[in-house]
Amino acid sequence: MEVYLDNNATTMVDPKVYEEMKPFFCDIYGNPNSLHKFGAGTHPKMVEALDFLYEGINAADEDDIIITGNATESNNTVIKGIWVDKILNGDKNHIITSEVEHPAITAACKFLETQGVKVTYLPVNEEGILEASLVRDAITEETALVTIMWANNETGKIFPIKEIGLICKTTGVAFHSDATQAIGKFPVDVQECNLDYISFSAHKFHGPKGVGGLYVKKGSEVTPLLHGGEQMGGNRAGTVDVASMVGMGWAMHLATSTMALAYEKNHVSKLRDKLEAAILELPETIVIGGKENRTPNTTLISIRGVEGESMLWDLNQNGIGASTGSACASEDLEANPVMNAFGSDSELAHTGVRFSLSRFNTEEQIDYAIKVVQGAVKRLRGLSSSYAYAPESHKSAL
Amino acid sequence: MEVYLDNNATTMVDPKVYEEMKPFFCDIYGNPNSLHKFGAGTHPKMVEALDFLYEGINAADEDDIIITGNATESNNTVIKGIWVDKILNGDKNHIITSEVEHPAITAACKFLETQGVKVTYLPVNEEGILEASLVRDAITEETALVTIMWANNETGKIFPIKEIGLICKTTGVAFHSDATQAIGKFPVDVQECNLDYISFSAHKFHGPKGVGGLYVKKGSEVTPLLHGGEQMGGNRAGTVDVASMVGMGWAMHLATSTMALAYEKNHVSKLRDKLEAAILELPETIVIGGKENRTPNTTLISIRGVEGESMLWDLNQNGIGASTGSACASEDLEANPVMNAFGSDSELAHTGVRFSLSRFNTEEQIDYAIKVVQGAVKRLRGLSSSYAYAPESHKSAL
Ligand SMILES: Cc1ncc(COP(=O)(O)O)c(C=O)c1O
Ligand SMILES: Cc1ncc(COP(=O)(O)O)c(C=O)c1O
Repeated sequence: MEVYLDNNATTMVDPKVYEEMKPFFCDIYGNPNSLHKFGAGTHPKMVEALDFLYEGINAADEDDIIITGNATESNNTVIKGIWVDKILNGDKNHIITSEVEHPAITAACKFLETQGVKVTYLPVNEEGILEASLVRDAITEETALVTIMWANNETGKIFPIKEIGLICKTTGVAFHSDATQAIGKFPVDVQECNLDYISFSAHKFHGPKGVGGLYVKKGSEVTPLLHGGEQMGGNRAGTVDVASMVGMGWAMHLATSTMALAYEKNHVSKLRDKLEAAILELPETIVIGGKENRTPNTTLISIRGVEGESMLWDLNQNGIGASTGSACASEDLEANPVMNAFGSDSELAHTGVRFSLSRFNTEEQIDYAIKVVQGAVKRLRGLSSSYAYAPESHKSAL
Repeated sequence: MEVYLDNNATTMVDPKVYEEMKPFFCDIYGNPNSLHKFGAGTHPKMVEALDFLYEGINAADEDDIIITGNATESNNTVIKGIWVDKILNGDKNHIITSEVEHPAITAACKFLETQGVKVTYLPVNEEGILEASLVRDAITEETALVTIMWANNETGKIFPIKEIGLICKTTGVAFHSDATQAIGKFPVDVQECNLDYISFSAHKFHGPKGVGGLYVKKGSEVTPLLHGGEQMGGNRAGTVDVASMVGMGWAMHLATSTMALAYEKNHVSKLRDKLEAAILELPETIVIGGKENRTPNTTLISIRGVEGESMLWDLNQNGIGASTGSACASEDLEANPVMNAFGSDSELAHTGVRFSLSRFNTEEQIDYAIKVVQGAVKRLRGLSSSYAYAPESHKSAL
């Protein structure tokens, strides 16, 4: 059996989404900026897609949603736009973020540090959550931007974006959230949360890879990262990838309808909980950060004495795809940065396995996965020299 | 009949290219960075695609080809990378380009000007060609980059990239060429031309929209525009869009094989020449910049007394898609910047119509287009108040 449980890395394109994209490769292929009907023929479905995007995140009509190449580009657009606008050409010099952001935030911030910008990396608490009060305490006169992810890609932990939004609004600091892991997992409402910017990537919610979005509240500025033609109101140049834009619109629609979110909350979380409960029956296993405030599809589990990489290997041999954390970092076998952020001992840091489900998983797949995981743990603990059963040692490590 | 003659704006995805892309939406959908077989399953076709790209531009094995979102991103990566690396953090402060670049170069340069960078915009000669000697004369100790397009999107004029490459090599200045309109039109050889960087976009040679390439010669630096994960060796972060990358590889392969280039040179240019000759039989019509040194598929024709926009309207009514110039600028009805660069009178500047063919055009389509154009010219000249037949007035305007 093949079981894909790595949906936080990327997802299958929903066949319905693909159906909507199809005509835009070989049939309706004009450049939307062209004045003739080959160009204009693309417009109705582009308008529909934009509508779906606005609806999906509750953007106001006067706000902007810019189509980008992915969440990485959206994140970089905000961070480097703020750098140019408010730091290089303004009087600010400080950005606030968290220790557990995706590299698409962290690496951009590290780059700004090489250019003399001060960056504060706020830690998460023992439950893997960033406390809003830390943001308030970190804001200074110099702060140009607060950028905090909405949901963490490794633990699934949901951050208090509404509270942070209120703090930013009160103090007049621009607020960006990387919502890449939030869309389709729970309701995302940019207005309610006082957000200036959010980023997302279609391939995390059953849309195509290579297309993302950047929400920009009316009145918030954005210095383009891609200068060129007048596409996206001059905010993001480059011929619009119509197929991908239509695909992202439909993916958003299918992922954020009331029914879809209810399904995610009830059915997907039920499957996740079933898998998780079965693994937790094994001794010395814990859910990193605990079970509260998580996206419905994710569990990051530490299995003492079992190297995450070895576990993945065993799972893979049995047709199951999972992860030790972000796919972006997986080429080097570094410890999971989120687990490091918990300050746990380094042995534990290598034992995390992330299972991330989607609406395309079935109960049958989960039952199969449970059996495989149980067998793998048994086998690997048998091999492991470092593992010796010691019931209390594990918990105290957190 | 429907006749698409706007292939410099964008092209139809070749059905063969689309066939190769298809499996990567709903079947082989893993993240290539993932360690399991859902991820690894993407690798063979990605390797094949990269091979096609290297072959297509004659890159050396040790050089880099970075997959980007489009040529606009590739151009911005080079220009802003050089800005950060050699200007903000170095001792250079000057960039050389031409007056007839695509906005994806010009707008990035204009942005750098707002940041205090000196930019030289070199003019083209009366044949629409940038003379290499101008580049040599413009280089100073401060010059960080020369960026000159390989072929112009409006006239199809081919610039002396090999000569300019030699000048840049001799003077030790980094050399970038926007090769977006060159790929698939004639042989592009990055090594022979001493290039440090070239940019291209798949959708200009029958690949998908939303994916491009940036060639980087070994030893030439590139500061990432998109910071984040370790994709593309850390030079361009963001989950790789496998379908699009595979599509671009195949499109490159199909467009740059010896057979394809011969077809372009013989058959496509024959159709272009037929269309052009028929239009030139009408009085007071000229090919802007003349017929020498052009891509085989393009003709930019000025028809005195006929507004380009009116002509497009007539053509469109008859199922024919053409352009007054770059699709990127077409939302505002400004005069074609290339025609302005010729310094011709402003009336002429509004009379250009660009026909750009592809290997999917047929002789039957061209015969039909000729009839439609002839009829439209007759009709529009009949309406035009500014047009009065004066055989010699036209030529002298150039
Ligand atoms: C010469 C040239 N450069 C760059 C571009 C930009 O390509 P894209 O819109 O795919 O980024 C185009 C076409 O629009 C072009 O013709
Ligand atoms: C929280 C988060 N932000 C950003 C990204 C980057 O997305 P992309 O690779 O599509 O740019 C990811 C996933 O890789 C993510 O999980």
